Amino acid sequence: MAKTAVIGAGSWGTALAILLQENGHQVTLWGVHPENVELLKKDRELKKKLPGVKIPEAIKITSDLEEAATDQEILVLAVPSVHTRETAAKLKGLIKDGQLIVDVSKGIEENTLKTLSEQIQEELPTANVAILSGPSHAEEVARKLPTTCVVGATDKKTAEYLQKVFMSLCFRVYTSPDILGIEIGGALKNVIALAAGIADGLGYGDNTKAALITRGIAEISRLGVKMGGKFESFCGLTGIGDLIVTCASMHSRNRRAGYLIGQGATMEEAMEEVQMVVEGVYSAKAGRTLAKKYGVSMPIVEEINKVLFEGKSAKEAVEDLMLRDPRIENSALPWEA
Amino acid sequence: MAKTAVIGAGSWGTALAILLQENGHQVTLWGVHPENVELLKKDRELKKKLPGVKIPEAIKITSDLEEAATDQEILVLAVPSVHTRETAAKLKGLIKDGQLIVDVSKGIEENTLKTLSEQIQEELPTANVAILSGPSHAEEVARKLPTTCVVGATDKKTAEYLQKVFMSLCFRVYTSPDILGIEIGGALKNVIALAAGIADGLGYGDNTKAALITRGIAEISRLGVKMGGKFESFCGLTGIGDLIVTCASMHSRNRRAGYLIGQGATMEEAMEEVQMVVEGVYSAKAGRTLAKKYGVSMPIVEEINKVLFEGKSAKEAVEDLMLRDPRIENSALPWEA
Repeated sequence: MAKTAVIGAGSWGTALAILLQENGHQVTLWGVHPENVELLKKDRELKKKLPGVKIPEAIKITSDLEEAATDQEILVLAVPSVHTRETAAKLKGLIKDGQLIVDVSKGIEENTLKTLSEQIQEELPTANVAILSGPSHAEEVARKLPTTCVVGATDKKTAEYLQKVFMSLCFRVYTSPDILGIEIGGALKNVIALAAGIADGLGYGDNTKAALITRGIAEISRLGVKMGGKFESFCGLTGIGDLIVTCASMHSRNRRAGYLIGQGATMEEAMEEVQMVVEGVYSAKAGRTLAKKYGVSMPIVEEINKVLFEGKSAKEAVEDLMLRDPRIENSALPWEA
Repeated sequence: MAKTAVIGAGSWGTALAILLQENGHQVTLWGVHPENVELLKKDRELKKKLPGVKIPEAIKITSDLEEAATDQEILVLAVPSVHTRETAAKLKGLIKDGQLIVDVSKGIEENTLKTLSEQIQEELPTANVAILSGPSHAEEVARKLPTTCVVGATDKKTAEYLQKVFMSLCFRVYTSPDILGIEIGGALKNVIALAAGIADGLGYGDNTKAALITRGIAEISRLGVKMGGKFESFCGLTGIGDLIVTCASMHSRNRRAGYLIGQGATMEEAMEEVQMVVEGVYSAKAGRTLAKKYGVSMPIVEEINKVLFEGKSAKEAVEDLMLRDPRIENSALPWEA
């Protein structure tokens, strides 16, 4: 049994808190808004996002960060990516040297281009920062549908410890040393989900979507490998696997915003209709900046940027992608002759 | 302009014949059944499989193999995989030394475990055998929805020539030297499609399906690399891309048969209901034999075999997959500590 706290009481944090509690660990769940926390304590259910999923009484719910974070073996950081750095900063002074932190969000900071684990490590230099990622809708994990994830950590012992902590009959956990590759894949997948949505909105078929997903992960991996990530991660659960789930989901905001753009809406109209911040729009910018910085060709990310920010028509963008110069599929492979 | 013949007038052969003709090539389309060929000549439409898609008058349709195959620059072989060897054998004597043949079917011969291009090369030792593969429903190609494929050839010149021949505004072609990797991926994907169908039939979600697709291609690539294929191909259009299309399609016989099995049908009942030979059932056998021959762990293929041929319940098979020994995601990646 481990003493754990989940920092962030959204759908993913809540689903993981339940998983950890049912795996026999002691769990505290922290939410930022006192009024929401009071409601959660009363209802024992995240009514809007995980309806029908009961939060066991054994899970302590609080909005007091000091109470939640102090003296825990594992802190699971499940706040939205834009709040990761500030939340990590607030943990300073509350945690011990070597504190094990598992980040479960995805994103890249717009101005610094840092991944979430890099931001946490900057704010908390003595912490042992690991990540958990993979194709995992929170609602399905909460409903105990079979799910697989990957724990990324710098040392094998930490990875195997966390694997044991999270693994259950319906939650299979793999380990990996490639934190950077996992995070790049998770952050940039939303751009491709936006592209897949656009293709659906244009009335294209499964062939087009499979092409966008496959060539999308190919360009993300070209960038990620240049940045220091491992090619294998992009072909794994946290790369292509996560991308498949995002592009298949009718609930993905990114896919839905893309769909509207494919049907002729502008970016602004699509964002208004979806009524939420669409991460893919920010990731598209970060992707373009990273592609330039590392000198990597990312044609899908480039065309998505043109559609989002330069008024290019979606149909024209697809045609330009289809008619680029003929290429070899993977330039690493040698010819016999 | 190239002189071409498409051998095999099913939906894929017909769609490719139309593509080639519209790309400005001279095309002959050969079908094996004289009565079907007469109908096709009269209707100029493959009514059952490609309704509404007109076959241009410029395409010559025939059931005379000598007429079709003689004196062509390119022969596209589009017959069902079980007929590939016998069709290649019939071409002996009709074709010239160095004849360029592009196989566009997928499969592994049950008794010899040879891929289709290997079978063709055995029957026609002087032919230059290339392949075309990728995520490409014939109906969508015929409807001109954007599609990507890969040409595999032993020499770069052939690959680039075929790339130019097939490429169009809605059909983007990449090249690759890895014929074997492309063929292994194409042949074994149907086993994973069967597994994905089973998961759907059991009522599992997107998380489970993404896990099966991603871990499925991981085990196919472990085998394929051991056989001499390249890892990159399994992460590309002819590996994961083709698998995504097959698992997403409501029309895939493999997925549908799997769905019925997930709902409780036996293999025999599922095959009867689907009313067609389900390739995944044969590929499952071939996959198991290859895994043993090459000493590779293929847990999904193994469990599918147990469900298909040993009466194991689908639910139990999924549980056994989830609870296998904890693993590292990719054993090629090193740890810092």
